[in-house]
Amino acid sequence: MARVFNFSAGPSMLPESVLNRAAAEILDYKGSGQSVMEMSHRSKIYDSIIVEAQKLFREVLGIPDNYKVLFLQGGASTQFAAIPLNFMNGSKKADYVLTGQFSTKAYKEACKVTDGDVLAVASSKDKTFTYIPKLTKADFRSDADYAYICFNNTIYGTKWNYIPDTGDVPLFADVSSCFLSEPMDVTKFGLIYGGAQKNIAPAGLTVVIVREDLLGNAPENIPTMLDYKVMADNDSMYNTPPCWSIYMCKLVLEWIESIGGLEAMKLHNEKKAAILYDYLDSSKMFNNPVVKEDRSIMNVTFVTESDELNAKFVADAAAAGFVNLKGHRSVGGMRASIYNAMPIEGVEKLVEFMAAFEKNN
Amino acid sequence: MARVFNFSAGPSMLPESVLNRAAAEILDYKGSGQSVMEMSHRSKIYDSIIVEAQKLFREVLGIPDNYKVLFLQGGASTQFAAIPLNFMNGSKKADYVLTGQFSTKAYKEACKVTDGDVLAVASSKDKTFTYIPKLTKADFRSDADYAYICFNNTIYGTKWNYIPDTGDVPLFADVSSCFLSEPMDVTKFGLIYGGAQKNIAPAGLTVVIVREDLLGNAPENIPTMLDYKVMADNDSMYNTPPCWSIYMCKLVLEWIESIGGLEAMKLHNEKKAAILYDYLDSSKMFNNPVVKEDRSIMNVTFVTESDELNAKFVADAAAAGFVNLKGHRSVGGMRASIYNAMPIEGVEKLVEFMAAFEKNN
Repeated sequence: MARVFNFSAGPSMLPESVLNRAAAEILDYKGSGQSVMEMSHRSKIYDSIIVEAQKLFREVLGIPDNYKVLFLQGGASTQFAAIPLNFMNGSKKADYVLTGQFSTKAYKEACKVTDGDVLAVASSKDKTFTYIPKLTKADFRSDADYAYICFNNTIYGTKWNYIPDTGDVPLFADVSSCFLSEPMDVTKFGLIYGGAQKNIAPAGLTVVIVREDLLGNAPENIPTMLDYKVMADNDSMYNTPPCWSIYMCKLVLEWIESIGGLEAMKLHNEKKAAILYDYLDSSKMFNNPVVKEDRSIMNVTFVTESDELNAKFVADAAAAGFVNLKGHRSVGGMRASIYNAMPIEGVEKLVEFMAAFEKNN
Repeated sequence: MARVFNFSAGPSMLPESVLNRAAAEILDYKGSGQSVMEMSHRSKIYDSIIVEAQKLFREVLGIPDNYKVLFLQGGASTQFAAIPLNFMNGSKKADYVLTGQFSTKAYKEACKVTDGDVLAVASSKDKTFTYIPKLTKADFRSDADYAYICFNNTIYGTKWNYIPDTGDVPLFADVSSCFLSEPMDVTKFGLIYGGAQKNIAPAGLTVVIVREDLLGNAPENIPTMLDYKVMADNDSMYNTPPCWSIYMCKLVLEWIESIGGLEAMKLHNEKKAAILYDYLDSSKMFNNPVVKEDRSIMNVTFVTESDELNAKFVADAAAAGFVNLKGHRSVGGMRASIYNAMPIEGVEKLVEFMAAFEKNN
């Protein structure tokens, strides 16, 4: 079969040129006589890969020197626990904004910390997370150890269109589903992190970018593998890292640089999103439920008037080579995730297909 | 360059046929139009991969139905913390046998658990971990929540040649560096686990096999991602699993079945180990420091009389295509890790090279 247009929320499409490069090198990386999957993580040749991946990550995202870049395992879900364990260490207060399932999970995980004082400072649950709350500095506690948001909400198709002012309180953000999709001012955050399986690499890698001065105050009984200071001090090599995913991350970063970096990526992504939202706004069959100004350019949700028609659309689309358009099981409907590697052609053809479906049904 | 013989302690060699298969399928898995690296982990096609991987794991190792097979992230190091958090839940006593660096790390991690009573019941540190203690049931506390051993010690080249009798106390074993190298009676253990990057798959996957009745008693504030019950209840899909490593695991299991399963694998591995140990026992230059009956058939350590000669050997060997023979940085000397995927030819040629080196130096 020809390669399909894969609208999965993650793992999702990788650039075809990256896959071709990985295929070409899979048995023998640069004359080493080994696959990257076989290399000792302590070898010089593997070291050159992980060092280059980190260097490229810094270049592409413009990460200042006083931030550490960590290549970890365990997914965002593991960071939900690691973050409060590492950083709820002063007033033991932490402020969370609930904009969907993942920020709520992160909040609940923080609530597990003994003696912690975790506050949901705002929530958009009242309208099924279809908008992002408007917050000012006064909404956050000035003595909190950190404030926490999920910057792009994969399930609901929303994105923060502003960075909330939390004053001197470090702002932490889960950027799993918008990582490297556009430029981001890292200096506005104490920590950003994300699972790699949407825009960066195959599943199994989690990238944490953290301001160095925040590290080193975890309690003594924190599990070693959740202690960001240990990971930072060991250059993400305290134990064996997810070597192959880091290698793929390097290839993806090279691809981002080759097409012009994050400014070009932003234009590419905005163009795709505009094509799809413009169609949805004109459609009489499909409807996007998100407040316009809070729309994600990565995850575009939509519904028809009935579950039956939704199901028919998802099935017909899959048969036509547009796969994984079913919405998250918790909300139903449809969702087109149009991450970096989705070509403009994929969105154009999807819209053509949707228009034809609308005409015929 | 031709493919080298890679004696790395892990990640290490994968069967060439497995790499060829992965290369062939990398852009389009079975006509799906997607790479396995791109598939939604919730899709039917990926589900068929993880289900088959688990089924094969059960078949190949002969895992009884009352054990769960979990595909996790985080490496053995993460399980060092997860194990006490999950299972130190009755008397809060846990007995550890210290046979090297990794069992000692696991012991220290258990010591972090508040109100725990962790005992090192035996240690072979007195002789630089070159032997395995002889233990009887009386050496373990009869009311411990579990007893813990590291079955094969990668750094020191030792292996338990017996399964200690711990009575009614469940025995847990880190089998990272001997997983699937020979048949193992899983019913003698409450839990066995290991990082995949030695015998099973590329780094990033940790396989935990646990008796079902032991699950479900973790404290409420355990990090969700460290709670084995949550992972078991969600078939290792609570969050996005390390999809590609699980796929590679499936291919490796198919390869093990194709060569005759673990009985055949054991003969293959014993033959390789015998070739190398026989040479070492006859050599006047190279010496294996391990008590003979406790020798590992996976990791073979050896030294010459001087650090200089060791370094020359490692360098000359690498130039000749025998790579990663340097011993662990904590002990020095040399180590040949001869995991499942190392062909007999690789060990034969290494011994030829060592004999020539001995003659010429």
